Amino acid sequence: MNKYAIGVDLGGTYTKLALVDKNGGIRCRAKLPTMAYKTKEALLSAVVSKIGAILKENRLSFRDLAGVGIGVPGLVAFEKGLVHSLTNVPGWRNVRLKKILETMLSALGGKIAVLVDNDVNLMALGESRFGAGRGAKDLVCLTLGTGVGGGIIIDGNLYRGTSSAAGEIGHMPLKEEGLKCNCGSFGCLERYVGNRYIVDEVKDKIRSGRPTMIRKLVKGDLSMITPEVISKAAKKKDALAVESWRTVGRRIGVALSGVINLLNPEKIIIGGGMADAGEVLFKAIRDTVDKRALPVSKGAVKIVKAKLGNDAGIAGAAALFMPNAAPLKNYASS
Amino acid sequence: MNKYAIGVDLGGTYTKLALVDKNGGIRCRAKLPTMAYKTKEALLSAVVSKIGAILKENRLSFRDLAGVGIGVPGLVAFEKGLVHSLTNVPGWRNVRLKKILETMLSALGGKIAVLVDNDVNLMALGESRFGAGRGAKDLVCLTLGTGVGGGIIIDGNLYRGTSSAAGEIGHMPLKEEGLKCNCGSFGCLERYVGNRYIVDEVKDKIRSGRPTMIRKLVKGDLSMITPEVISKAAKKKDALAVESWRTVGRRIGVALSGVINLLNPEKIIIGGGMADAGEVLFKAIRDTVDKRALPVSKGAVKIVKAKLGNDAGIAGAAALFMPNAAPLKNYASS
Repeated sequence: MNKYAIGVDLGGTYTKLALVDKNGGIRCRAKLPTMAYKTKEALLSAVVSKIGAILKENRLSFRDLAGVGIGVPGLVAFEKGLVHSLTNVPGWRNVRLKKILETMLSALGGKIAVLVDNDVNLMALGESRFGAGRGAKDLVCLTLGTGVGGGIIIDGNLYRGTSSAAGEIGHMPLKEEGLKCNCGSFGCLERYVGNRYIVDEVKDKIRSGRPTMIRKLVKGDLSMITPEVISKAAKKKDALAVESWRTVGRRIGVALSGVINLLNPEKIIIGGGMADAGEVLFKAIRDTVDKRALPVSKGAVKIVKAKLGNDAGIAGAAALFMPNAAPLKNYASS
Repeated sequence: MNKYAIGVDLGGTYTKLALVDKNGGIRCRAKLPTMAYKTKEALLSAVVSKIGAILKENRLSFRDLAGVGIGVPGLVAFEKGLVHSLTNVPGWRNVRLKKILETMLSALGGKIAVLVDNDVNLMALGESRFGAGRGAKDLVCLTLGTGVGGGIIIDGNLYRGTSSAAGEIGHMPLKEEGLKCNCGSFGCLERYVGNRYIVDEVKDKIRSGRPTMIRKLVKGDLSMITPEVISKAAKKKDALAVESWRTVGRRIGVALSGVINLLNPEKIIIGGGMADAGEVLFKAIRDTVDKRALPVSKGAVKIVKAKLGNDAGIAGAAALFMPNAAPLKNYASS
């Protein structure tokens, strides 16, 4: 009994579910198109049915489940299981998600615990338990994408802070008098290394006449430039693209030096789409940390790429119910 | 039995000791002039005699002590009780302080546990258990002086990081391309708000012809300017002095916004000599955090002045042996 947990990752595009066993295997997956559901009730109802279907398919009952963990892209009051608001998913304001899901699930046939957390927190927990962070006690996870997020693991557990809002590495200051950030502050890391700002800087340089193969890669249509395109060019040694990732890496390295001096973590795990820029990015990050962070702390930290890819979120959601599980198997990226 | 602990605060000028009871009262104090001892062995031997004398004076035996906690101004490997090096106290390199003190104390008559930690960590612990941080689970302590240090309390306990080096708020980046810091990096908070940099900026402004009563306060001798002098002038509404503290407060506020966004603490406690600048400094810090930190986290944090003054270190050292003590009494500043 209680050999399994369900992990749910509610995303702006897809809501993913998985049955995860206590040894870490992903036994069964499902995926729902989030936006196809007109209301949150309809989406949650589909999630609950899918959980029922997964149990049936695997000849399991609610008594076999330790719980259902769900990660959402937004601000959560973890202890209450309350979602304050979601980014990119309209209609979610002060939703008592834990209570709603527990009620819906009990109608389906059993009393089952639900835990709700921020998706980046759960990615950090997933990587910590089953991915790049295995064995490390204190670590920080950074996700690079449209936004720049983070999660903090202390002594093997998620550190959430006093109002479940910890981990906002994207809003660490990089420049005291820097550019205005979406958050209202100035000079935040995210304002310089969020996807669109990287793309904008590259566009500006192309418009100013810098030669680059990027122009050709997008057939002259600069609006088609993405971080993936810049990575493609960088892998072919395009000078502008390489310079772009080096600048991004240096900026991330400066902010991470602050995080490293403050938290003296054992590992920094970097994930999210942009981490695929690979060695050119990681080398710039590591070189900057090596120049900037204090000797003892920089000597103690390993800066590594995330391992679980898009499965980190569901893994972490299930891990909320698995204090000391073995490494998960059957990951998307492994 | 075990109703007391000894707290020791080894400083560059004085080494202070106190007998602290489990209800938090400072029962007995002693003070040794650190530099009067030619070797560390001589100093430690005096510390041990003083502990013996304190016990005798209070008709106590080693069996009445839970332990001896000692704070030192430098880098410590907490679990080993090893001092890597000290700032401003020559001759301390890789000293197995825990072992040495335990051996010396056992020669004096009893088996007693010694714990060694960084002094700023122990100030944070002292303030957390008995001072401005009482009742808060997650808090950050910042000390402003020649150096800018910090300590982190998570879930009521000191967070030390993976190599006991956490808490270096003074070396959080404020300006990506800022001035070179002592630590080797650039644009660190300490490089802008460490005592001498504040004084240097004021001197530069006076030399450039800015009118100020500071000139008169130091009788024209600019080398006599200290943060205390600037505070004195600020309290009399001297424009240059007020501007100086506002700038310092804004810079501290920017760095703290990053700390607040990262750790979402319940409290920030600010101590050290400079905190005596008072409201002009604290207002600038709070206003900046209010403009810069993320809404949920800034709404949750209280930024307050430290309460225990110079006793925070001995209190914290004793607190290493008092998991859940009541507030200490008889403090220097209370």
